[in-house]
Amino acid sequence: MSEGFSNVLRQIEKLKGKPVRLREKTITMAHGAGGKATHNLIAAVFLEAFRNPILERLEDQASFEIDSKKLALTTDAFTVYPHFFPGGDIGCLSVHGTINDLATAGARPLFLAAAFLLEEGLPIEDLQRIVASMAEAAQKSNVQIVTGDTKTVQKGKGDGIYIVTTGIGIVEHSVNLSTKNVCPGDKVILSGTVGEHGVAVMIARGNLELEGEIESDTAPLWEMVDSVLKVCPQIRCMRDPTRGGVATVLNEIAQSSQVCIRVYDEAVPIRPEVRGACEILGIDPLYVANEGKMLFVVPPEDADLVLTTLKQHPLGKEAAIIGQVEDEPKGIVLLETGIGGSRVLDMLTGDPLPRIC
Amino acid sequence: MSEGFSNVLRQIEKLKGKPVRLREKTITMAHGAGGKATHNLIAAVFLEAFRNPILERLEDQASFEIDSKKLALTTDAFTVYPHFFPGGDIGCLSVHGTINDLATAGARPLFLAAAFLLEEGLPIEDLQRIVASMAEAAQKSNVQIVTGDTKTVQKGKGDGIYIVTTGIGIVEHSVNLSTKNVCPGDKVILSGTVGEHGVAVMIARGNLELEGEIESDTAPLWEMVDSVLKVCPQIRCMRDPTRGGVATVLNEIAQSSQVCIRVYDEAVPIRPEVRGACEILGIDPLYVANEGKMLFVVPPEDADLVLTTLKQHPLGKEAAIIGQVEDEPKGIVLLETGIGGSRVLDMLTGDPLPRIC
Repeated sequence: MSEGFSNVLRQIEKLKGKPVRLREKTITMAHGAGGKATHNLIAAVFLEAFRNPILERLEDQASFEIDSKKLALTTDAFTVYPHFFPGGDIGCLSVHGTINDLATAGARPLFLAAAFLLEEGLPIEDLQRIVASMAEAAQKSNVQIVTGDTKTVQKGKGDGIYIVTTGIGIVEHSVNLSTKNVCPGDKVILSGTVGEHGVAVMIARGNLELEGEIESDTAPLWEMVDSVLKVCPQIRCMRDPTRGGVATVLNEIAQSSQVCIRVYDEAVPIRPEVRGACEILGIDPLYVANEGKMLFVVPPEDADLVLTTLKQHPLGKEAAIIGQVEDEPKGIVLLETGIGGSRVLDMLTGDPLPRIC
Repeated sequence: MSEGFSNVLRQIEKLKGKPVRLREKTITMAHGAGGKATHNLIAAVFLEAFRNPILERLEDQASFEIDSKKLALTTDAFTVYPHFFPGGDIGCLSVHGTINDLATAGARPLFLAAAFLLEEGLPIEDLQRIVASMAEAAQKSNVQIVTGDTKTVQKGKGDGIYIVTTGIGIVEHSVNLSTKNVCPGDKVILSGTVGEHGVAVMIARGNLELEGEIESDTAPLWEMVDSVLKVCPQIRCMRDPTRGGVATVLNEIAQSSQVCIRVYDEAVPIRPEVRGACEILGIDPLYVANEGKMLFVVPPEDADLVLTTLKQHPLGKEAAIIGQVEDEPKGIVLLETGIGGSRVLDMLTGDPLPRIC
């Protein structure tokens, strides 16, 4: 999930000493959408409390060394509704999501912990399907679920099941990945088509009168990422564009490195049925969550090699160079449209697609 | 939390090949109480799905080696209601609980990850108090909260806030801790008085017409445990008697080692006001959750040294030898009452005190 604390903390490190004020008095759904409200909440509440021990001691908050082994730690809460949707369910999603977060740090996933918040009345059969899906996803990705916890809450105090997965991975490649590393001239590569996951969940929820064949793209990305890191360890950074979509992640990178990212609208791979669904929903697909895609920023001389490597992997067949990094205007993402114009592609505001992951 | 998967998995390893059947069709509150229903749920659902990769590869499911460094991983979900109670809140509880779980593995806590499930409408002020409490608890225990995630759910799909903390620790002492190690003759030592946490939460909830001065015992136990391990690394096992209380944990140990544990009722330290509250509630304090206590099983020749060491620590002043291990009847906990009789002290059934952690 791109919206973990550490990414936000890293990005807003420059705010040190300037406390962020929240205008809201209570939590709203927008605070969980991964966009501006989430960033403000984390900055105002969590950064204020945790800033010293984390920001001042650790360069990358989610990575640490134990006996000169570089490990990565990530945690993610999954609240997707419905629990089952075309292409996946909350179980496999919770395994893939955490694997993909480790992958963004260049870490091979080793072990997962899983915590379950179960609402009174959840059918045991549903729980069994979800757990079986997790087990299968873990096995396919060669990770082990080594510990767990279950808690139950009364009817009306949950929504069937929430899952929190936490992963430990090991950084074996000699990489220096950071959203601060991005330079003018770098190329932005997306590993495949955008928007399937969010749209598939919305259709499953019945919010959309579509008989679509759109399936979630939920998938574990470590193997694909590993193949890229093997040939191009000098990658600047990677991010999986989940909540907030490609647009929000690119904004985070642009702000973190104080560069401009120019995206070519026509170069972004998108399935026509996803584009159609997004039009009906009135949402730009660049803001829709993906659960099986990775964004890479790479030095220009490596772009072709990374693209070729991605295309050789089943999950990267539709990879494309979707943009490039420029010097100015700093901290801004510009979308170049087909008709020769360009507009600012801002970070997500509000929460157009709640609880899709 | 004594009810993590790994403990249950370890305990029911003997069930290999004999699938546990659940009579219930849906989740009930008892499935989260830490007693029989929790054990059956984990055995029937999670063990069935996860058994091969975990049980067959790992001796202690929550510990693993990376480059010959022994690490421990634990995860815990916190759903306590109300969020604030005498002696603590869901924030510090979520830090202490995970530290204490690492301590039971003999592991010094290093890093925590925290995931927050926030319900729409939660006052930001409450969130800030809770997060400040977490930060303070982490700082006092010398652990760092290095990564996190937040998700929001709609009003009526949560209960203000749930927190999942996951901890990584390092096992530095040369210990061999397992609930399978317990032998006849061993002594059972409890680090202090029982029942405060559960009773404090019940009073805070207003379920009990008591103007009690009873505070939760929530506290981080690693420092105390470390001092014991330094002088007595040959401890058989440790467990923090949280959900299900002392009685449930002792049953798990008795079953795991196939021994009888005899508990002397009069030797169990308990504050009179807790005893009084438990009488009004109609609950045996041995089933009430503690959040700052540790149970040790030690070889008989080490009992006095462990007791003396515990009493030197502020959190162990009221430590006592509360029982001993015998050969028969295997897998049973017997409570020796003051009047010379004894009765079986079974595992917790049902859920007399829901959501106290």
